[in-house]
Amino acid sequence: MKQKLTTRFTERFGLDHPIALAPMDKVAGGRLAAAVSAAGGLGLIGGGYGEAAWLDRAISQAGNQRVGVGFITWSVARQPELIEAALARAPAGLMVSFGDAEEMISAAKAADVPTLWQVQRLNQAEQALKAGVDVLVVQGQEAGGHGMDRGLTALLPAVRDRAGPEQIILAAGGIADGRGLAASLMLGADGVLMGTRFWASTEAEGSAAAKAALVASGGDETVRSKVFDVARGVDWPWHFTGRIVANDFLKRWHGNIDALKQESAAQQAIYEASDPDDFSTRVLIAGEALDLIASIETARDIVETTVSEAHALLCESSRYLAS
Amino acid sequence: MKQKLTTRFTERFGLDHPIALAPMDKVAGGRLAAAVSAAGGLGLIGGGYGEAAWLDRAISQAGNQRVGVGFITWSVARQPELIEAALARAPAGLMVSFGDAEEMISAAKAADVPTLWQVQRLNQAEQALKAGVDVLVVQGQEAGGHGMDRGLTALLPAVRDRAGPEQIILAAGGIADGRGLAASLMLGADGVLMGTRFWASTEAEGSAAAKAALVASGGDETVRSKVFDVARGVDWPWHFTGRIVANDFLKRWHGNIDALKQESAAQQAIYEASDPDDFSTRVLIAGEALDLIASIETARDIVETTVSEAHALLCESSRYLAS
Repeated sequence: MKQKLTTRFTERFGLDHPIALAPMDKVAGGRLAAAVSAAGGLGLIGGGYGEAAWLDRAISQAGNQRVGVGFITWSVARQPELIEAALARAPAGLMVSFGDAEEMISAAKAADVPTLWQVQRLNQAEQALKAGVDVLVVQGQEAGGHGMDRGLTALLPAVRDRAGPEQIILAAGGIADGRGLAASLMLGADGVLMGTRFWASTEAEGSAAAKAALVASGGDETVRSKVFDVARGVDWPWHFTGRIVANDFLKRWHGNIDALKQESAAQQAIYEASDPDDFSTRVLIAGEALDLIASIETARDIVETTVSEAHALLCESSRYLAS
Repeated sequence: MKQKLTTRFTERFGLDHPIALAPMDKVAGGRLAAAVSAAGGLGLIGGGYGEAAWLDRAISQAGNQRVGVGFITWSVARQPELIEAALARAPAGLMVSFGDAEEMISAAKAADVPTLWQVQRLNQAEQALKAGVDVLVVQGQEAGGHGMDRGLTALLPAVRDRAGPEQIILAAGGIADGRGLAASLMLGADGVLMGTRFWASTEAEGSAAAKAALVASGGDETVRSKVFDVARGVDWPWHFTGRIVANDFLKRWHGNIDALKQESAAQQAIYEASDPDDFSTRVLIAGEALDLIASIETARDIVETTVSEAHALLCESSRYLAS
């Protein structure tokens, strides 16, 4: 019999498992989101910076599966029509990250779409709670891609204390297996949102070379940096850094961002002229959980292995108890 | 009846509880270490950079309680006689952090003293395992004071996978209550090492003003920086940063370390002339767990509350299980 873990999150969203897919820009397409939902989790398409045509295609690819969609708040705020279009599809949820999302949360509530707001600091959690978000996603600095500086271990219980016992909370950042899921439940979460683990999946968008590079890399090699935002000319608010696998391009510029800014046009040209699978130059976005990822798996295998491992850990936890 | 949690760590050291005191330099004196040991945990005196007279006094203060001692590896390596003196006292354990500790581990083994080696990256864990350390302490970047950049959530299970099932492992960084202890067990640890939580204790060395400042501060305010090492003229290897509560002095120099280096003598004089309890200038060392600390408690209350909270969480974990 298939094992399940039941939490406020699974009950609210009608899921078998308390696992959500991080809406990774361009990586979490319709195929991956649908596969996570089909496996009993919550699939979220990576709407990213906001490209209407890509998003339309991804939602269509998800077919009959109930999936949600996630956006980069500060970017999609410049295209409110995209939020309207996404809400018109009645997604399973609207997730926002990185910026002030009060208006998007209001629009989603008006459309009766459940809301998720990812935060990186305790003061951001307070802002999201004030907006009445349905699910607070607490992201530690371990996460791949954009984020901030606080670690999950202390931030998650602090957010729980501030949010009260009834708020639905998901943990994100550095989680790739049942140990991370079980630990997140102990820290006060109702489930997890996993990115890097699902990036290394059969259904993720992305080349075989990129996925092989994920499996070959480790957490010690990752670093939070501004290099690739500057090199790609992406206008991120300065306090958000991106965790990526360090490569030659990064090592050249990481300690020298001011110089990179000064020749950003030239470096952007070099970057864009490089082979998309040449990860000595190209950015490989990934989190510290890389150490826990030994092979490319299907989304279903990832979900089921994670749940059965967490299930076993929780069952066996009585071995620690003495009186 | 007093609750207990039994792990490989408690069994190896004959403890009631899987909780160790971080050997915080100058803060973890004989009184605090003895109080943690008396409460059933493992008290470790903060031998720090190595001051023979201070250490002697601290060990004497611990009286009849079995306590261990911890050192900053790169610093105490310059005073091997201090390690010999500490080992001659037959401490409950010798803990080393921050640097190559093979020789100290060998000396402790020869003296039949149990060894603990704190690591911050997976490659350091491999080095410590090769040296045959008894207890591997895995420190996440959430920790107060010196450390590195990896978060506990992903690093701890990665170290467990590398170390194998029998190695004793403690989790450190961002842990201040039973949620952190229960989560650490799920991630593969056999117990925890807590710093900031014990710094905010009755028995910790340090002024009432410093302890009040800890209770008043939060994790969002902390930052990892080189500022205070440079300002105090302490010669730390460059890859180790210190997590402290941001203050005016830090804000002035954090983004401008090169300039601080150039006028380090003048700034060191300003720093040392300041009131030791003026935390707008003076460093207040603390980790992200500050959010979880609402009052100064006795070491015994901290140990017992942490264990009973973890005990309850593990007992109640069956509520998540469905089939």
